[in-house]
Amino acid sequence: MSEKKLWGGRFNEKASSIMERIGESISFDHKLFKQDIKGSKAHAKNLLSIGIINEDEFQKMVQALSEIELEIQNGEMEYRLELEDIHMHIEARLTEKIGEIGKKLHTARSRNDQVAQDVRLYISDSINQIEESIHKLQSALIEKAESVIDIIMPGYTHLQVAQPIRASQYFLSYFWALKRDKELFQFAKKTTDVLVLGSGALAGVNYLTNRELIANELNLEKISENSIDAVSQRDHLLQYLFACSQTLIHLSRISEEIILYSSVEFSFISLPDSLTTGSSIMPQKKNPDIAELIRGKSGRVIGNLNHILTLLKGLPLAYNRDLQEDKVALFDSEKQILISLEGITELVKGMKLHPENMQRSLANGFATATDLADYLVNQKQIPFRIAHELVGNLVQECVRNKSTLFDIPEKLRTSISEYFIGEEYFHAISLELSADKKNVFGGTEKNRQLEQISLAKKSLTE
Amino acid sequence: MSEKKLWGGRFNEKASSIMERIGESISFDHKLFKQDIKGSKAHAKNLLSIGIINEDEFQKMVQALSEIELEIQNGEMEYRLELEDIHMHIEARLTEKIGEIGKKLHTARSRNDQVAQDVRLYISDSINQIEESIHKLQSALIEKAESVIDIIMPGYTHLQVAQPIRASQYFLSYFWALKRDKELFQFAKKTTDVLVLGSGALAGVNYLTNRELIANELNLEKISENSIDAVSQRDHLLQYLFACSQTLIHLSRISEEIILYSSVEFSFISLPDSLTTGSSIMPQKKNPDIAELIRGKSGRVIGNLNHILTLLKGLPLAYNRDLQEDKVALFDSEKQILISLEGITELVKGMKLHPENMQRSLANGFATATDLADYLVNQKQIPFRIAHELVGNLVQECVRNKSTLFDIPEKLRTSISEYFIGEEYFHAISLELSADKKNVFGGTEKNRQLEQISLAKKSLTE
Amino acid sequence: MSEKKLWGGRFNEKASSIMERIGESISFDHKLFKQDIKGSKAHAKNLLSIGIINEDEFQKMVQALSEIELEIQNGEMEYRLELEDIHMHIEARLTEKIGEIGKKLHTARSRNDQVAQDVRLYISDSINQIEESIHKLQSALIEKAESVIDIIMPGYTHLQVAQPIRASQYFLSYFWALKRDKELFQFAKKTTDVLVLGSGALAGVNYLTNRELIANELNLEKISENSIDAVSQRDHLLQYLFACSQTLIHLSRISEEIILYSSVEFSFISLPDSLTTGSSIMPQKKNPDIAELIRGKSGRVIGNLNHILTLLKGLPLAYNRDLQEDKVALFDSEKQILISLEGITELVKGMKLHPENMQRSLANGFATATDLADYLVNQKQIPFRIAHELVGNLVQECVRNKSTLFDIPEKLRTSISEYFIGEEYFHAISLELSADKKNVFGGTEKNRQLEQISLAKKSLTE
Amino acid sequence: MSEKKLWGGRFNEKASSIMERIGESISFDHKLFKQDIKGSKAHAKNLLSIGIINEDEFQKMVQALSEIELEIQNGEMEYRLELEDIHMHIEARLTEKIGEIGKKLHTARSRNDQVAQDVRLYISDSINQIEESIHKLQSALIEKAESVIDIIMPGYTHLQVAQPIRASQYFLSYFWALKRDKELFQFAKKTTDVLVLGSGALAGVNYLTNRELIANELNLEKISENSIDAVSQRDHLLQYLFACSQTLIHLSRISEEIILYSSVEFSFISLPDSLTTGSSIMPQKKNPDIAELIRGKSGRVIGNLNHILTLLKGLPLAYNRDLQEDKVALFDSEKQILISLEGITELVKGMKLHPENMQRSLANGFATATDLADYLVNQKQIPFRIAHELVGNLVQECVRNKSTLFDIPEKLRTSISEYFIGEEYFHAISLELSADKKNVFGGTEKNRQLEQISLAKKSLTE
Repeated sequence: MSEKKLWGGRFNEKASSIMERIGESISFDHKLFKQDIKGSKAHAKNLLSIGIINEDEFQKMVQALSEIELEIQNGEMEYRLELEDIHMHIEARLTEKIGEIGKKLHTARSRNDQVAQDVRLYISDSINQIEESIHKLQSALIEKAESVIDIIMPGYTHLQVAQPIRASQYFLSYFWALKRDKELFQFAKKTTDVLVLGSGALAGVNYLTNRELIANELNLEKISENSIDAVSQRDHLLQYLFACSQTLIHLSRISEEIILYSSVEFSFISLPDSLTTGSSIMPQKKNPDIAELIRGKSGRVIGNLNHILTLLKGLPLAYNRDLQEDKVALFDSEKQILISLEGITELVKGMKLHPENMQRSLANGFATATDLADYLVNQKQIPFRIAHELVGNLVQECVRNKSTLFDIPEKLRTSISEYFIGEEYFHAISLELSADKKNVFGGTEKNRQLEQISLAKKSLTE
Repeated sequence: MSEKKLWGGRFNEKASSIMERIGESISFDHKLFKQDIKGSKAHAKNLLSIGIINEDEFQKMVQALSEIELEIQNGEMEYRLELEDIHMHIEARLTEKIGEIGKKLHTARSRNDQVAQDVRLYISDSINQIEESIHKLQSALIEKAESVIDIIMPGYTHLQVAQPIRASQYFLSYFWALKRDKELFQFAKKTTDVLVLGSGALAGVNYLTNRELIANELNLEKISENSIDAVSQRDHLLQYLFACSQTLIHLSRISEEIILYSSVEFSFISLPDSLTTGSSIMPQKKNPDIAELIRGKSGRVIGNLNHILTLLKGLPLAYNRDLQEDKVALFDSEKQILISLEGITELVKGMKLHPENMQRSLANGFATATDLADYLVNQKQIPFRIAHELVGNLVQECVRNKSTLFDIPEKLRTSISEYFIGEEYFHAISLELSADKKNVFGGTEKNRQLEQISLAKKSLTE
Repeated sequence: MSEKKLWGGRFNEKASSIMERIGESISFDHKLFKQDIKGSKAHAKNLLSIGIINEDEFQKMVQALSEIELEIQNGEMEYRLELEDIHMHIEARLTEKIGEIGKKLHTARSRNDQVAQDVRLYISDSINQIEESIHKLQSALIEKAESVIDIIMPGYTHLQVAQPIRASQYFLSYFWALKRDKELFQFAKKTTDVLVLGSGALAGVNYLTNRELIANELNLEKISENSIDAVSQRDHLLQYLFACSQTLIHLSRISEEIILYSSVEFSFISLPDSLTTGSSIMPQKKNPDIAELIRGKSGRVIGNLNHILTLLKGLPLAYNRDLQEDKVALFDSEKQILISLEGITELVKGMKLHPENMQRSLANGFATATDLADYLVNQKQIPFRIAHELVGNLVQECVRNKSTLFDIPEKLRTSISEYFIGEEYFHAISLELSADKKNVFGGTEKNRQLEQISLAKKSLTE
Repeated sequence: MSEKKLWGGRFNEKASSIMERIGESISFDHKLFKQDIKGSKAHAKNLLSIGIINEDEFQKMVQALSEIELEIQNGEMEYRLELEDIHMHIEARLTEKIGEIGKKLHTARSRNDQVAQDVRLYISDSINQIEESIHKLQSALIEKAESVIDIIMPGYTHLQVAQPIRASQYFLSYFWALKRDKELFQFAKKTTDVLVLGSGALAGVNYLTNRELIANELNLEKISENSIDAVSQRDHLLQYLFACSQTLIHLSRISEEIILYSSVEFSFISLPDSLTTGSSIMPQKKNPDIAELIRGKSGRVIGNLNHILTLLKGLPLAYNRDLQEDKVALFDSEKQILISLEGITELVKGMKLHPENMQRSLANGFATATDLADYLVNQKQIPFRIAHELVGNLVQECVRNKSTLFDIPEKLRTSISEYFIGEEYFHAISLELSADKKNVFGGTEKNRQLEQISLAKKSLTE
């Protein structure tokens, strides 16, 4: 069996070396073994149900398949180039174990619908794992948010200090982004959770395959309506890769901030030694390598998405061998997203915040200048644009004087506006009060933050 | 007003020429005018509700905004570089019309949440239009499928003739792909249909903005939970661009097939003159330009997706000016997908099928060789692999003899197997019977096709 | 003439609306008019040379083409959808002007080789312009480098302060990157500067076209060796788009740094008001919008590269209509790169450096810790790894004590190593001396910087 | 040694598990061992030359490094996660072998310039290999072209039969495309062949490193002018990946054609059994899997290019850990391009052409209709546009009559034009004569083809 390719009938010449080397996929698709065996068992049950095999044969098949799964899991399966892919390896081993009965397994099935189903099951399992990892990161973000709700940090636009925000709001902003990522993965899961077995090579099979039974066995709610579409489309994979990309875009952004905030100049956070590296030549450095690596991995996953988009472009129906390498992008993206989610989770958990440095930035960045303008508008009935101009002048004076709104001498202040004086002035520029004036739903005010934390918790348990 | 930038307060020098030229977005964002005015009206109602403006001011604002909408629609608005974007143009015109009252419109609102909302509304409207176009193409596919259900054409794997399929199944395979596209757009719509007004620059606004009221006015069910997330994430745009890419991948594949099938060598279809071009130097050619252009447009839309993925990578929160050009990718993709859907719809409607050429391919491609093997297995109890080998030998004989399974002399056939004889043999290789043996759900058999057409129709009316 | 399409012979039906709308390219390819007319004039000379037209006809043609060029330049040409592209517009206008003679221009030429040549000429002209812009930026970088050679700033790895560098070295690092960009554009120019006229539709023309003469007229050294390759490949465009991408990667990196260095936390540089914007709601902000926009434009240009890569993938030879939209990516990329180069040039010229803030970072970042270790190794014969450890301990002490290497009390220092004392210690941690110890070619030492500046100047005049 | 990280000095906590798993690169960068050892030997010679080590130490180092190279080559090196990368493995092994002397190797060198140099050397070696593979494919194309020069096949535009071409011209069109690929790789080689050792971490090293000597040892002509640029830019990698992409675009196009031409409908070529596969269920199929896989690999390599473009976007200088994974894209692209070039070479060599099927297509596609029009113009002085129309009418008549220009009855011909008659008519539509009328340089005429073959041969020996 293993000497001769399954398709060997028509071939006079020996498969050339280049054909074997370029054609093999066992070097990567061995990862599908669990799904392949799961699918084969369900298919065997169908063969039993429609009378292709009898109960005894069925039991032998299922038993042997379970043994093979264990063998592979224990690393006892030796992969051989000439057996090309994991499906052939399992099939060959099955025949080795139970002889002619094993060969019946491939009745009413083509390699095309078999592999298509395996990959769909793999993606589904993978999404479950990713969702768990997202969940962990979301939990870490909520926990962090709760513990830092009283820290006021700068919010940025154009990387310029813009407004004081509660640190909780910063961390929670990623919570909601991750919630969308999860929803996107759930959407992709619905696309992948479809029974395609029974589609044969492309036109359906010549047997009244009991597709409801197989779907049931594999816990799939949906059955593909069109066999050509079932074996040739890769929307589920595209959606999976896109969901990885969207998620990694989010992770690349928090990574960028972790890197920025770890810099000497910001010094907003410190990371534990266990999550950083030093440099072989500069002993003082604590490098945020994990965040950097994850930022870079966003490119890697986007590259994988492009791989498949380009591969699919202009491909005529139905199965083409180009599709064999879709799994390369799948497996690599899965690995990158899982380790990235884990990495950011550890970073969020492990980082310590330095509120004093955040306050320094807020003061240097005139973060409450807008509040001062609002104060003039609301309390002193000064038209918005004029208030805007007065505060602009005050800021310019501070810059000239190397001071902040907090320490600029009163005389200089009042030379610009009579209202820039006394308790009221300091009230108007207070960082915490500024944050708490944003009391709209979704805003940075403390109660709104508490409300948001409880919404986040609720969303996690749904 | 129009002489001086809205942010002019702090600036001593004149805005330099490069700043104006690189910073302007009016050349493309003028397309947002309807959404900007719609959003402004809803915001005005909020200002009325929370007491910033009175009923009279509200009426004047809304009235003036309606007039401005009409002016722009009629091409009466002159765009000026120094007014940068559509929002500034509308604001300037509003103040021109109703003076100081107009300036109040920007209370409790920042350019950041305003633009973010406008683009979300635009995407939502755009998805409605795209869904309509998808619907039209789906209808065309059903109609086509119904009219060609009795035509047997080759199904391909590796672009090799594989199995006979009913032409209806070919067209319907795209119906189901488009259904997934529609679902993906609907998912993106849910992501975009969120109220973000009230998020201010990034931290929320200093007013108890009535976000439920605005959401209601704008017909949005969801209100953003975190103001930072609301102004800085572009997931809705990414999802929109990805949905365009997935759809155009599908359209690139049917385009490829239209091009193939229009070739002299296939001659499976003819396109009407109105949908093709000739060549200035070769009078006989009927070029499938529309399909080619659409195939190429898949690259254009994938390019747009990459534009925004790369743009977003590593961008720290919250708003950064990089984001201004996200609209370039949006508007171009919208245009490409709408015209592509229309183009394929016309091609599907207009094409004529040539069943005789399809049959020639099926015969030349030994499309029913598998059926012959199955016949040996099922009727003659020959083991699958041996049957496989016998049929392989017969095919080789045909190739040597330049004949097909249909016209190879009986003597040559029976020299390979005694079973390759008589009515039974021709029954076994019948194209139509082969198609009708695939009677599994989703298969190419006629009743399954009728069933699928009715499922497709049902899905369209849901 | 203008009523009827040039290819109209075989068509019974009117061109449908979708065909006209999707097929037209005049909305973008009008930019090719100069190159089209230049190419046509050279082709006319060839027609004269091989006897297709006489001297009088030639003069009329050339004269009319010059007039048309002027008309288009002056905006007097009215573009019409039914004339599809710029080539048709010029041809139609030519016939309007000089009647039957005009129709002879298209002898021995196909639209395929004509457009291929026009785009090649356009790319060549475009590269000249881009090189000029790169040259300007390089000059600005040299000038800047010269004026800041005595400023010591931090060099970063992992965005952590790593070593003191001369500011000149920072600016010059982009000089050399841009030199590679220029070389890449020059390479692309060699690829584009090829005569393809004479290739006809794909197989060559039926006339003994004098290709050397045309090449000479168009100032092209190379003549394409294979007519199929000439009309179907787009390597010159790919290389142009890739050169734009590589350049914009560089510009995105300096943009990132300009944004970082403009932040309140770094405060390494200030940008002039004319190159920044404020915010409508926060008067104190000076946003580095130009740098942000350019950082984002890198995504746009990479998107364009992907557009064409995806478009070309799997396209069979020779011309396919997909290729029509290659010009969209070309024109957009040209616009983005030119304005980006101009933008960075202005930013480099306009920025002011704040050396005191750079020194603060260097001290806070223990930038000369490595030098201190080297001092132990070189002056005190302490093994490298042990020296490394001692300095590590000192840094930890500084962190605990909230001080820098410069201001940590001597007692604390000497408790770690007896060598951390006196003048020698301060000598060892001196920022300027550290920089000047890197006196290897390419290093940051002052003389090496002067040497590098002179190399840069020399490279510019080559 | 192996217990403790090289940078271990400052770390109190054990490196966490996530740090080790995400940070390791030994799983892929072990491929750099040859280049690392080569670079280290050259660096050792420098250390000897500038007096850091003595002759005896130098000999021991070089000897030990040679032994390590052999150990790795023989698979005797056991890779361990905690030693992170290949550089650490080699360094640790060196110290194991020669003790303290081994530690001196890292003097005047940083991991940053070391790795940067290793990758540059790797890319250079890789380009040599790729060029050899391109050369082989080019040779195969010339050989093929010579053997098929007398076969007339259809040239296509819009995948419509356009003009008769000599098959030699088709194969040679890829020869010239590959020549440009080679030039592009040679350009990338010049970019990569630069000495960067001596750049240290980023600012240069504190030793008067003899960079000319190292460059000489490593056979590099150029020495980097700026140490920051040297360690932070990845243009050489980008150019390598782009060259792979351009090449694979070409290979994807010839793959597409091999797939098309292998189809039953075209039947222009047959591939040997050794280069195709069958299907497990359909014995008659000969699938062009190699061509399909290569077509798909174009997406994979374009994905890799996107990985690095996205990774680099917006990365501040100098080294960032993101860059560690640039090698993933490098190694995968190298593998894909080498096997793809080999695959196409085998396909070109192995394919057999079927001229009779090509002629059938030419006749069915009215390939010489243009020639007939030219005949009317040139021999019968009929204006071009009118000739165009007459031939158009004749083609329409053929279509109606299901005939070709060759077999349409004379009566029908002459009813359209009196000139469509006799020997002259058949002369005008002759396929071979048509090809030979394209006698312009680069055209498909036989002598031009012979000329082109000799040019191609000459180009190969340059």
